[in-house]
Amino acid sequence: MKKIAIDMDGVLVNTPMQALKWIKREFGLDLDLKKAEGSYLFYQLPEELRATAIEFLQHPDYFRDIPVMENGVEVLRELSEEYEVFITTAATQFRHSFAPKFDWLEKHVPFIDWKHIVFCGSKSIINADIMIDDHTFNLDNFDGEGLLFTQYHNVNKTGYKRVNDWLEVRDYLL
Amino acid sequence: MKKIAIDMDGVLVNTPMQALKWIKREFGLDLDLKKAEGSYLFYQLPEELRATAIEFLQHPDYFRDIPVMENGVEVLRELSEEYEVFITTAATQFRHSFAPKFDWLEKHVPFIDWKHIVFCGSKSIINADIMIDDHTFNLDNFDGEGLLFTQYHNVNKTGYKRVNDWLEVRDYLL
Repeated sequence: MKKIAIDMDGVLVNTPMQALKWIKREFGLDLDLKKAEGSYLFYQLPEELRATAIEFLQHPDYFRDIPVMENGVEVLRELSEEYEVFITTAATQFRHSFAPKFDWLEKHVPFIDWKHIVFCGSKSIINADIMIDDHTFNLDNFDGEGLLFTQYHNVNKTGYKRVNDWLEVRDYLL
Repeated sequence: MKKIAIDMDGVLVNTPMQALKWIKREFGLDLDLKKAEGSYLFYQLPEELRATAIEFLQHPDYFRDIPVMENGVEVLRELSEEYEVFITTAATQFRHSFAPKFDWLEKHVPFIDWKHIVFCGSKSIINADIMIDDHTFNLDNFDGEGLLFTQYHNVNKTGYKRVNDWLEVRDYLL
């Protein structure tokens, strides 16, 4: 069975939507994802708010109630019948994200057992046939086939087969 | 630079010693590591205590103050100058072990950064040149060179180059 390594933030979960929500709630600001294309939302923030915004990522609730990416759970379930699916997320960057991420997975994708969850940093350590990720720097370090999951920040990146949403993932892999 | 994946429990940290300590403290029992060779300490416990003993592994303090394996930190530091060292530990089996394990690493081996820490389940997902582990079932699923770190439970296992302690790791790899 071929192994697929699937990223969480920006792929299985809608991290940009969570960022917009927290920025709105904490700062009262409506940022524009479209205007952030090819860059990061972060740079639309006034400089004096940026340090606080970075701290959001260290707050346990940030990763706890993060919304699922549209069709993500359904297609993941289908993939898990044809492939050995691993969730590979760069969680070690955020000490307080471990338990919330683990609980999120248990709640939303209970068909992925603990043996198939990987909290890592550098994805150069990942051994799989296919990797789906929204960061080219993760795919660059990966030996298998990299699929670039479209996110606002990567719209100008090239060099990888691009999947624009989970339905395209299904079409390509199933 | 060659990549080495190094296990925590039973390799970098002295998990059997922690088990003996907790069993003594909680049950007042002195178990015998020598008599458990080729098996697990667990089976020396009276049946009625086993469920409680398994719960130790879900207690955050169990992994927090676990003793370092003799010479482990020193040799790991030396290895990290010649190899790209990843700590690869099957932490996803124990939901409450993430933060204690992360904090342990930060305290005892601060020269290993977050990019080189992997909390996983199945080690078949690990891509490295060398893996040091005390479980043959982890080495069996690994594509690179597996080194079996001697522990009481694996003394009868064969099929891998064996390293009996960290000084032998140093001799073999440096």
